[in-house]
Amino acid sequence: MKIGFIGLGRMGINLVYNLKDKGIDVIAYNRSPEPLDEVRKNGVKTAGSIRELVQALPNPRVIWVMVTAGKPVDLIIEELLRFVEKGDIIIDGGNSFYKDSVRRYKELSKKGINFLDCGTSGGLKGARYGACLTIGGDEKTFKKIEELFRKAATKDGYAYMGPPGAGHFVKVIHNGIEYALLQAYGEGFEILKKGPYKIDMEKTARVWSNGSIIRSYLTELSIEAFRKDPNLSRIEGIVGGGETGTWAVETSKELGVDAEILKTALELRIRTRTDPTFAGKVVAALRNEFGGHSTIENSKRNFQRAQKRKVFDTVKKR
Amino acid sequence: MKIGFIGLGRMGINLVYNLKDKGIDVIAYNRSPEPLDEVRKNGVKTAGSIRELVQALPNPRVIWVMVTAGKPVDLIIEELLRFVEKGDIIIDGGNSFYKDSVRRYKELSKKGINFLDCGTSGGLKGARYGACLTIGGDEKTFKKIEELFRKAATKDGYAYMGPPGAGHFVKVIHNGIEYALLQAYGEGFEILKKGPYKIDMEKTARVWSNGSIIRSYLTELSIEAFRKDPNLSRIEGIVGGGETGTWAVETSKELGVDAEILKTALELRIRTRTDPTFAGKVVAALRNEFGGHSTIENSKRNFQRAQKRKVFDTVKKR
Repeated sequence: MKIGFIGLGRMGINLVYNLKDKGIDVIAYNRSPEPLDEVRKNGVKTAGSIRELVQALPNPRVIWVMVTAGKPVDLIIEELLRFVEKGDIIIDGGNSFYKDSVRRYKELSKKGINFLDCGTSGGLKGARYGACLTIGGDEKTFKKIEELFRKAATKDGYAYMGPPGAGHFVKVIHNGIEYALLQAYGEGFEILKKGPYKIDMEKTARVWSNGSIIRSYLTELSIEAFRKDPNLSRIEGIVGGGETGTWAVETSKELGVDAEILKTALELRIRTRTDPTFAGKVVAALRNEFGGHSTIENSKRNFQRAQKRKVFDTVKKR
Repeated sequence: MKIGFIGLGRMGINLVYNLKDKGIDVIAYNRSPEPLDEVRKNGVKTAGSIRELVQALPNPRVIWVMVTAGKPVDLIIEELLRFVEKGDIIIDGGNSFYKDSVRRYKELSKKGINFLDCGTSGGLKGARYGACLTIGGDEKTFKKIEELFRKAATKDGYAYMGPPGAGHFVKVIHNGIEYALLQAYGEGFEILKKGPYKIDMEKTARVWSNGSIIRSYLTELSIEAFRKDPNLSRIEGIVGGGETGTWAVETSKELGVDAEILKTALELRIRTRTDPTFAGKVVAALRNEFGGHSTIENSKRNFQRAQKRKVFDTVKKR
């Protein structure tokens, strides 16, 4: 199987290596040249332009887009539309809002182009060795290239979720849950830290990872975070991100679901930007472990965006 | 190794079978005779009274107590004190509040009796096949019977956490986190359920269990819960329990930690008793999966107790 791959950010670059290792013939393109040079050195074919990428693929073409959500996805699709042909398949594997995916599906359908929305979870290691993929779109299109998803995913780590947008819908909710889980562990470790005992955090993360009810991928990452930096003294208690969590909360409101925990977790993440906590250090450390996220990434921009949307109408002032 | 075991509730009975399978010579006692009869049929030695239990053990005696937190623990210890001798070891493996464990340690120390507090996590399957144990008390006492904990626990699933109370302290915080994780998944599944797609919950739980950032023991249990009852129509959206979560929140307040997520999760659990939700169904189903908990267990009693303690001074009225 031969595919085109656009977008060599942290997730994209790892996914490309993963696909290559699984025997997929990948041709990669990226706007800036540095990551292109890097993957080329590691034996990945590259294209100098989107045109070149499209022309190097056999019909029907399969192109995996992995760029920042929002405008960048539309720009890539706009350019792709100049070269692709009826029957080609575009996959958006990024963190897009599901309603954007529904819109893109409709626009592309009119031109005879197939579109699948694919929520990609599992962080950098997942991208590299086996991700978790939730896919939406026409089932016929999905089946046609199911092999690609099977190879990109860890064992049983992909699923067709339903009509256009369903894959990204499930991913948005996944991320909303993720915010809350991170915050829950963060607060728990903060209480342990400030409690009457000198609790060994790494030891606790390790024992919790083995047999407890709260064992999870995040407890496993906590072992690593506390091993590297037992007091997280090199981590700022300021948590970046915020966009997908905002979408999850907006979606819950729209659907009339009282998602208090998801909302509170989002509010608390935003609050770390003015009021850093040890819980915030834990969240930032864990996000760094799974996604390579910086501790202060985009914080101001996301905060302003969220304020504008009035998501935080119930944020408690302290 | 030969030990006495007092308390054959859901957790106790499974732990006794676990210890027996691992080659520990267990003599069990329980106030009501039915579970005693059951374990006897399955080859476990039993005692007809606490006196008989103590007298059947070699010096120094090791006695694992696994009864309901609070008064029942004190009553058992009071009775044990009539028969045990200096150097004997009593383990409280139940869900006791850590301050009670500190008090019990002090009282027993005066009489020359060793006391270890052991937080036991992992639910019924953990108890049966390998639990997660966090142990507090004198390290010398812990080391003396470390073999017992190693055998009761899953691989790397036990740890000495520190001085008296430390084991139960870590377990209280574990449970606080557990409430929040449960609620986070509950809300997530509720949004999926009420969203614009007919999302297959079991399929989602399965794909999330394989490679996603939010993969956990609880996502694995979700597969089973939704497999048995895809719409959770046989589960009431009312969540029982509440005691250990209340302790976690009280502890956070005492330590000046702003544990909003843990507090919100506790409040929302209590709120399910007047205002059941689909999220509550998910939480109840998961608690049933790991602990065999009924959906309405003790709810009224715990609510009243929590109200009395004014833990819910910030519960938002709707």
